[in-house]
Amino acid sequence: MLSAEIIAIGSELLTPTKTDTNSLWLTEKLNDIGIEVMLKTIVGDDGSRLEETVRDALKRSDVVITTGGLGPTADDITREYTAAAAGRALVYHDEIEQHLRERFRSWGREMPEINKRQAFVIDGAEILPNPNGSAVGMLAEIDGTLLIVLPGPPRENQPMFIDHVLERLRADAGTVYVKRRILRVSGLGESAVDEIAAPIYTGYPSVQTSILFNKSEVEIHIAARSDNELEAIATCDRLADELTKAIGKPVFATNGETMEQIVGEHLKRRGETVSVAESCTGGLIARRLTEVPGSSDYFVEGAVTYSNEAKIRTLSVPLSVIEANGAVSAECAEAMAKGMREYAGTDHAIAVTGIAGPGGGTDEKPVGTVFIGYSGAKGTKSVGLKLPGDRYLIRWRTSQAALDYLRRQVM
Amino acid sequence: MLSAEIIAIGSELLTPTKTDTNSLWLTEKLNDIGIEVMLKTIVGDDGSRLEETVRDALKRSDVVITTGGLGPTADDITREYTAAAAGRALVYHDEIEQHLRERFRSWGREMPEINKRQAFVIDGAEILPNPNGSAVGMLAEIDGTLLIVLPGPPRENQPMFIDHVLERLRADAGTVYVKRRILRVSGLGESAVDEIAAPIYTGYPSVQTSILFNKSEVEIHIAARSDNELEAIATCDRLADELTKAIGKPVFATNGETMEQIVGEHLKRRGETVSVAESCTGGLIARRLTEVPGSSDYFVEGAVTYSNEAKIRTLSVPLSVIEANGAVSAECAEAMAKGMREYAGTDHAIAVTGIAGPGGGTDEKPVGTVFIGYSGAKGTKSVGLKLPGDRYLIRWRTSQAALDYLRRQVM
Repeated sequence: MLSAEIIAIGSELLTPTKTDTNSLWLTEKLNDIGIEVMLKTIVGDDGSRLEETVRDALKRSDVVITTGGLGPTADDITREYTAAAAGRALVYHDEIEQHLRERFRSWGREMPEINKRQAFVIDGAEILPNPNGSAVGMLAEIDGTLLIVLPGPPRENQPMFIDHVLERLRADAGTVYVKRRILRVSGLGESAVDEIAAPIYTGYPSVQTSILFNKSEVEIHIAARSDNELEAIATCDRLADELTKAIGKPVFATNGETMEQIVGEHLKRRGETVSVAESCTGGLIARRLTEVPGSSDYFVEGAVTYSNEAKIRTLSVPLSVIEANGAVSAECAEAMAKGMREYAGTDHAIAVTGIAGPGGGTDEKPVGTVFIGYSGAKGTKSVGLKLPGDRYLIRWRTSQAALDYLRRQVM
Repeated sequence: MLSAEIIAIGSELLTPTKTDTNSLWLTEKLNDIGIEVMLKTIVGDDGSRLEETVRDALKRSDVVITTGGLGPTADDITREYTAAAAGRALVYHDEIEQHLRERFRSWGREMPEINKRQAFVIDGAEILPNPNGSAVGMLAEIDGTLLIVLPGPPRENQPMFIDHVLERLRADAGTVYVKRRILRVSGLGESAVDEIAAPIYTGYPSVQTSILFNKSEVEIHIAARSDNELEAIATCDRLADELTKAIGKPVFATNGETMEQIVGEHLKRRGETVSVAESCTGGLIARRLTEVPGSSDYFVEGAVTYSNEAKIRTLSVPLSVIEANGAVSAECAEAMAKGMREYAGTDHAIAVTGIAGPGGGTDEKPVGTVFIGYSGAKGTKSVGLKLPGDRYLIRWRTSQAALDYLRRQVM
C-alpha cells in the first residue's frame, strides 16, 4: 500500500481559529484508491521549516502533497522551498505569464507585475492547469517519490486533483477498490453500540471499521478494500447488513443519511404531512426538517411557541394543563402536539418542551429535562428524557430525539 | 519570541472525518503568553515517523508539545518513541502503578495488567498528574528544548496544561501581555472591509490583525502584544475603535458576539419583544434568536409558515397578495411581518420568504432570491436580496441578513 503525506502551508493555518480542511478531503480521495495518509503537517510562511518538512516527507513517503502558498505575494513561498527541498531549480515559463496576462485582460485589468512570480515552476515538473485561479499546480517525480504541489483554495485544488492527479495516483497505487458505508445509530451510546458491533466486525479483519460519536448519534464507518470491485462491495454490504440486523431499530440510516433525510423519505413514501411545535428547541427541529430539498412536500408548518401565551394562543394548550403540570411536562408536550396537529391539519405532529439551561432548572426538573409529544391518527403520546450537555447540546439532542420519535411512528 | 511545535498523535486523526482540535486550544494559550506556534504535525501510531517528528521538533523549536497516544493499549506508543527521540530511557514508577490500582479500586474494579504500561515515564521527566484520567503527562528539558507530553482527551490535557504547564512556560517566555478583540461585520465583503481596514491597521505594525470570512460575515481579529499590560489593552482598544468608526454600521459586534446576541442585547435594553415568521429559512432565525440564554425575555413566538396555507392561516397574508406577486415577493414579506406582529402582539416582527434551492428557481426569481420584511411601531418595510451559495448557505445568509435588518431597527 502506498503511503502519503499532506503538507498544508500558510501562517493563517497556525492561528487558534483555523483548521486545515483540505487534508480531510484529500485523505478520503487517497484512501478510496488505497493510498494511506501517514502524516500531516501544517507549516507557516517559514522557509527553513517548510524546506525541512518537504525534504523529510520526500524521503519517507511515496506521495507528498502540499496545499497553499502559491499566491503572488512575498509570503507565498511554496514554489521556492519545495524546489529547494527537491534539489531542483525554478524555471520561468513564459506561456504561464502570457496566460495570466490574458486572464487579467478578460476582466478588463492589467496583470500586476507581482503575479509574474506565479510563472515559476519546479524544473522538470508537469504543470497542472488551474481554471479557477491564477496559481498553477505542479507534479514531479523526485527520486521515486511523487511530489504534488496544489493551490490552497478548495475550489481550485479539488478540481485540479480530480482532473490531473487522481488517475495518475490510481495507476501508481495499483487497482484497489474501496467500498464505504456509514451506519448511523440513535438512542444507543458508543460503548453499547461497540458491544454489539465488535463481535461482528472483528470477523472481518480486512475491513476498516471505526465507531465515532457525534453530538447525538453514533456512526459506524465501514471501508472494505479489495482488488476485486464486486468483492469490496459485497463484503462491505454484508458487514453493514449484519450490523444493521444486530443493532436493530436504533440504526436510522444505512448510507450516511441524516435523521431529517430519513424522516423525510418515510413521509414522502407514505404521502403524509407533518407539523412541529417547539418550545426549548426554538425552531431547530423545523430548521432541520426543512434543510432537506423538497421538504415542502411534507412539511406544512412549524410553531415556535416559546412563551406560554403562544402555547395557549396557537396550540390551544389549556391554561389548566400548564397550571397543573408546568409548561415542561408530559401533559403539556401532548397538548402541544395535539393542538399543532389540529391547527395545521397534518397527519403527524411532534412537539417538544424542556429546560435547555443554563437557567430555569429546579430540583424536580433540572436542566436537561425534556418532554417530546407526538400526535397522529392513532392518538397522542409522549416520552420524557434527561439529556446531558450545555444549552447547545441539549437543544441539539432534543431535536434528534424528537425526530427519532417521529421516525419510529412513520418507519 | 519563543517558538513552539504541536504534535498530535493517533491514527484516528489521519482519517477523513477527524481533525486535531487540541492544537487550536493550545495555540491560543501559547499565543496569549507570547509563544508562537511554528509547525503542527499529525502522526499516526507509527513509531519511526513519530520518533523522527519529535526529534526534528526538539532540534528546531523551543517548546514541543505532544498530545495523545498515552493510553494503556499496544497502539499507544507515545511514551516509547518520545523517549527514543529525546535519547532517554523509560523508567518504571511504582507510585504511578499504586495510584492507578487505587483509582480502579475506587470504582470497585481491579486494574487490568495492561495499564502497567502507563507507569513508564521518560527518565528525568517531571510527572504531570491527571485527575481526570489514567495517563500521566510528562515535562522534560531536552538539550534546552522543553518537551511536554500530554494525554489526548481535552478534558484531561486542558486542566493539566493550565495547572502544571502554563506558568512554567510563562516564566520561560518572559512577561508578554496579549489583548485580543474580534470585530464582526455584516453586509460588506472581505475585500471591501480590507480596503477600509488596511490603511488603519498597517499603522499598527506591532499588532497582529487578520481578516477572515465566515459564511455570512467578516471577522477582524486583533491581537496586541506588549510587555506592559496597560499598553497592550490600550493599543488593542484604540485600533478596534478606529476600525469600528471607519467601517461604521456594518460592524455589529466589537467583542466577538454573535448577531443573535447583539440583537438580543438591544431588545433587552429597550424592554421590547420580537416575533419571527419564516418561510425559506424554516425555523433557523427563531433557532438562532433562542440559542441565547435568557432569550425568553424578548422572543415571544415564531411561525414556520412553509406552505401558502400556513401563511394565510397564521399570518393572515391575503391570498390576493400571493396571487398577484407570488409567495416570494416584497409584498408577501411585508404582509408576513405585519401579520406576525399583529398575531403575536410584539413590538417588532421580521419575516423572510425566498428560494433556497436547489429547485424552485425561475428566470425572474432565481435560486437565492430572498425578501426580508420588517414590521414595527413605525410601520412595515422590506428589502430584496440575491444571495449566492447552496441551499445551506442561502438559508444561513438569509437568517444573517434578516437579523441584521432587525438590528438596524433596534440599535
